[in-house]
Amino acid sequence: MEWDMERLNSQIKFIMEIDRLKQVFRQTYLSDGSRKENDTEHSWHLAVMAMLLGEYANKKIDVLKTMSMVLIHDIVEIDAGDTYAYDETGNTTKRQRELKAADRLFRILPKDQADHFRGLWDEFEASETPEAKFALTLDKIQPLLLNDASGGISWKDNGIRLEQILKRNEPTPEGSEVLWDFCKPILEKNVKNGNIIE
Amino acid sequence: MEWDMERLNSQIKFIMEIDRLKQVFRQTYLSDGSRKENDTEHSWHLAVMAMLLGEYANKKIDVLKTMSMVLIHDIVEIDAGDTYAYDETGNTTKRQRELKAADRLFRILPKDQADHFRGLWDEFEASETPEAKFALTLDKIQPLLLNDASGGISWKDNGIRLEQILKRNEPTPEGSEVLWDFCKPILEKNVKNGNIIE
Repeated sequence: MEWDMERLNSQIKFIMEIDRLKQVFRQTYLSDGSRKENDTEHSWHLAVMAMLLGEYANKKIDVLKTMSMVLIHDIVEIDAGDTYAYDETGNTTKRQRELKAADRLFRILPKDQADHFRGLWDEFEASETPEAKFALTLDKIQPLLLNDASGGISWKDNGIRLEQILKRNEPTPEGSEVLWDFCKPILEKNVKNGNIIE
Repeated sequence: MEWDMERLNSQIKFIMEIDRLKQVFRQTYLSDGSRKENDTEHSWHLAVMAMLLGEYANKKIDVLKTMSMVLIHDIVEIDAGDTYAYDETGNTTKRQRELKAADRLFRILPKDQADHFRGLWDEFEASETPEAKFALTLDKIQPLLLNDASGGISWKDNGIRLEQILKRNEPTPEGSEVLWDFCKPILEKNVKNGNIIE
């Protein structure tokens, strides 16, 4: 088999570059509360969720596209860093930082694959297609489930109020009403036990 | 939308159970050598590689199936632990420990999804289909690339000899001759600089 060495070198360069995403940590703790999780652990978790929970999407989804989207949706954080959901200052500059990162990172790839990855990321960010909406639902409920399992450490650490969570999750039912409905009693429980401020 | 609460509860139970895979560490270091990587980071990395490198598979592969396979191939290690490639004693009991783990873990899922996940895992283990062979190629070259990037720490830590690596990688070209050919000069370089014992 003949192959284009320049092309393969670009692909391997990208694969080694994204190894750095294993060092970008989120505010969410593992379920046992022992430490925070990083972006690659989070992305792996979302991809397995996409394999299992697609039947609850409001509209029929392409599972491969959804899995691809969640696997790469945080790659821009290699340059831009993780911006905590409730960090108001950070969120004003987030979009600009992430666009710059997307420009640099995806362009390491051969043009066809750079365009494909950038397209998936843009689609996720725009949150208009069924796959992007469902990916966003997964991206929102996974930390919620982990926060609940870990005894609400992350909510307590940051003094999070219920209204902040509800505002943040306004788009969550657009991907899956079932999964959002599943999460509502979990939030109520954590308000009752004081992990979330009412 | 109506849904089966028992089914969804089983799915969420499994999703929370596999969070423990984030605590199963491998012998491979991150590319910067700062720490070892865990099974979920490794699985995420393989899934992105499957998105990018499928064109080098010896036989045409179903990318969704390959991604699904690599995402779940190490889940059994939640119970069975990671068995280092060159741990001869550990490898004599590995298969038995992993089968027991597969029985317990996948059965948390609703029957149809338990069968699907178990089928993917069995297919990976049997290494007969183009997808399973290619998944194995990725599973073998990813640590090789990381070991090279990190200055060979893992090879040096464990006093690894070239013949051990070559024996271990006998099936690697069956998934992709191109990718194995790409790795050969990397091994030669690491023999020359003393990271791998000749």
